[in-house]
Amino acid sequence: MTATADLWPLFPDHIKQLQTRAERLCKRENLDLLAIHSGQQKRWFLDDMNYPFRANPHFKAWCPETQLPNAWVIIKPDTRPTLVLLNAPDFWHTTANLESEPWLEEFHVEHISSPEAIEKLLPYDKKNAAYLGEHIEVAKALGFENINPDPVLHFFHYHRLFKTDYEIACLAQANHIAAEGHIAAAEAFFKGDSEFDCLLNYMAATRQGQNEVPYNHIIGQNKNASVLHHWLPDKKSQVSLKSMLVDAGAEVCGYAADISRTWSAEHNEYEELIAALDQITLALIDKMKPGMEFPVLHQLAHEQIANVLFAFGFVSCSPEQMIEDGITSVFFPHGLGHPLGLQVHDVGAAQADERGTPIPSPTGHLTLKTTRTVEPRQVYTIEPGIYFIEPLLQKLASSRNKHVINWKRVDEFRPFGGVRIEDNIVIYRERNDNLTRQTSLDAYVKKVTRLA
Amino acid sequence: MTATADLWPLFPDHIKQLQTRAERLCKRENLDLLAIHSGQQKRWFLDDMNYPFRANPHFKAWCPETQLPNAWVIIKPDTRPTLVLLNAPDFWHTTANLESEPWLEEFHVEHISSPEAIEKLLPYDKKNAAYLGEHIEVAKALGFENINPDPVLHFFHYHRLFKTDYEIACLAQANHIAAEGHIAAAEAFFKGDSEFDCLLNYMAATRQGQNEVPYNHIIGQNKNASVLHHWLPDKKSQVSLKSMLVDAGAEVCGYAADISRTWSAEHNEYEELIAALDQITLALIDKMKPGMEFPVLHQLAHEQIANVLFAFGFVSCSPEQMIEDGITSVFFPHGLGHPLGLQVHDVGAAQADERGTPIPSPTGHLTLKTTRTVEPRQVYTIEPGIYFIEPLLQKLASSRNKHVINWKRVDEFRPFGGVRIEDNIVIYRERNDNLTRQTSLDAYVKKVTRLA
Ligand SMILES: [Mn+2]
Ligand SMILES: [Mn+2]
Ligand SMILES: [Mn+2]
Ligand SMILES: [Mn+2]
Ligand code: NI
Ligand code: NI
Repeated sequence: MTATADLWPLFPDHIKQLQTRAERLCKRENLDLLAIHSGQQKRWFLDDMNYPFRANPHFKAWCPETQLPNAWVIIKPDTRPTLVLLNAPDFWHTTANLESEPWLEEFHVEHISSPEAIEKLLPYDKKNAAYLGEHIEVAKALGFENINPDPVLHFFHYHRLFKTDYEIACLAQANHIAAEGHIAAAEAFFKGDSEFDCLLNYMAATRQGQNEVPYNHIIGQNKNASVLHHWLPDKKSQVSLKSMLVDAGAEVCGYAADISRTWSAEHNEYEELIAALDQITLALIDKMKPGMEFPVLHQLAHEQIANVLFAFGFVSCSPEQMIEDGITSVFFPHGLGHPLGLQVHDVGAAQADERGTPIPSPTGHLTLKTTRTVEPRQVYTIEPGIYFIEPLLQKLASSRNKHVINWKRVDEFRPFGGVRIEDNIVIYRERNDNLTRQTSLDAYVKKVTRLA
Repeated sequence: MTATADLWPLFPDHIKQLQTRAERLCKRENLDLLAIHSGQQKRWFLDDMNYPFRANPHFKAWCPETQLPNAWVIIKPDTRPTLVLLNAPDFWHTTANLESEPWLEEFHVEHISSPEAIEKLLPYDKKNAAYLGEHIEVAKALGFENINPDPVLHFFHYHRLFKTDYEIACLAQANHIAAEGHIAAAEAFFKGDSEFDCLLNYMAATRQGQNEVPYNHIIGQNKNASVLHHWLPDKKSQVSLKSMLVDAGAEVCGYAADISRTWSAEHNEYEELIAALDQITLALIDKMKPGMEFPVLHQLAHEQIANVLFAFGFVSCSPEQMIEDGITSVFFPHGLGHPLGLQVHDVGAAQADERGTPIPSPTGHLTLKTTRTVEPRQVYTIEPGIYFIEPLLQKLASSRNKHVINWKRVDEFRPFGGVRIEDNIVIYRERNDNLTRQTSLDAYVKKVTRLA
């Protein structure tokens, strides 16, 4: 769960807002009960071991403790939400002890002694009840007819992007924790540690294990920094350590931080490239404001990256030409960012309204999954990157654009892999809050690099 | 994969034995093709993140590289086995590069560019073909009628217990790696580190992350040592650190080590209890031999544990009476051991023959999952334990047996949690090989404890 006490004064209002939201939905959809299932442990095939438990994000919205298989949140209009906890006798495993948790006060708490016992806490007639969860067979066995109805999912997914104060505080805390991890990983990097040892240092600082974070730690050194999701850290140290890209987060009460930083072993031109991308990140964040469509910001990022590609001498044609010919997409093939919250890629990212009307990605930018219009109380990542990705460079080298590339210059940077800088931003009407720059990370970057 | 070069000379014979085994099955079941599917990535509910990949154990039996989703092993009588690898263009992720692997020579290798492309490598008529894997919908879409047929699973599960030289070498290497982890965790313990920091030290020494091991690391300090599967390590250091139970393994080419050691912060009576249990472990291993039914060994363990409970003054009645009244089961509630191999609790553990005839657990010992008769080339864990488990002690305290318990003595040991010692043993006709005692662990135990 990893939370500090200052979150809890914000929790009652969070639940109140969720309850109000849910009541509006129930009225619209003629529902009188929502049964939100945390989930069940999943077994490995033909084994008695389980996958790490990952709770239903709809459950996580209500319940700060995410390691509770077979738990339920039951919502009824004009009624305090019920939290149902499984209290099965089990001396084999460590079970979460929630008794003294202050947030429990917002719930009517029920205990069941077996997963099936949820049945007696549900109405016999489930015509106006809906099940929200992964286990269709459980829902059917319980007699639900409405299982994950589209209108219900769309509604919550759309509104999920608008964060309560509690949610923003969770995201801010997650940023503080992740920042400690990034600093620890960088310290290990400067000592010459392997990717795996940098990961261990990250975990030591964040106090969160590999299955307690919202996404797999990405730690890539040298050429591995060009693998966008480099999820299997090398165990061996690099012979000549040049660079490290760390994209890693932390979780607080189910809310994710998603931060990227890139490090150079020396004060060189690669470090200047990192600094240039850092400037782009801040400039783009500065441009973000309510009413702006995220794809417009993505387009702006391509312009800025084109400028850097020109300034560093990688590409010799004009920035406009670079974008038109798709050259920026070779160096920056992913989306500029995404909504952040209960899921690292928060859902509802391409939904125009609470009924789920899709907003398609702009032509030529299918990797941009976020097409919403930026609004107050939303939280986004901004994560531009410049990479030297072998398969994409090879394709470029055999394309009609090959002559505008300064291949000698590109070759100089290939061993460094790439650069990504990623911050987490809260949008307000009058300002943006950069949660990532409010941590100790910025001061550390300034200390160790020449140019940031 | 984590393997050293000395494994590969043993690999051809391993594949030859598996092929011979499979051919006998195919003849018996009138099959001319077995399609063994490694598996697919599994998504978190409503998310774009995946659970850690865990390969189908039937695939792991043939293929040393276990991180290969959408791969296949195709077996036909009188034909070299085919290994089908997915080579989809993907610059987002790190993919295993197998090209230079010496074990690849035992296979005819085919590449597919999409998961669906497996279809063209399979016969159109699948009447005499069987699918072995988790993804029933994939098998059906491909036109398989025989999906995980019971006779096929029972056959492989039964024979799985008999290890080839290659498999034994993998298990031995896994023991060496795990031993380094146990020593590193113990060193951290003696410095006063938290459970989580001991885990990080374990991982640093073994070079295997939390999702690269055959089961979750169990690291319990003080009272947590009484939780048999204490899978969520405490992040905070203990105020008064007394004890630590580590049950943790390592994996080599898909084969598991499963080792437990228990440590005392001081030279005290608890350390004597650890030493007593260590002696029981060795004595039981000494008694193990071909022809012995595992439940008989489990019964012997209860006798030995009864002796220790008497000698340490926890229980005042005779050892015979203790067993008859189920008192030993309060202090030792789990099974003595299990077959070890591709899965930490290897399947086929309660199968009398290759047709799957079950061998039931002895009355009163339902937690003993292994009921087979010990035979040469089998590998078992031997893992006696003595624990002070609150819920079980509470039940005992309100039972008619409460008067034979020296509760003051029990109270003295409660803060230590418990003790478990677990070794991995290969049975041969003329001797047993204790893979765990062939590592550096024994010398380390002798160095740091007074009595071992
Ligand atoms: Mn990221
Ligand atoms: Mn991101
Ligand atoms: Mn075991
Ligand atoms: Mn074990
Ligand atoms: Ni990915
Ligand atoms: Ni368990």
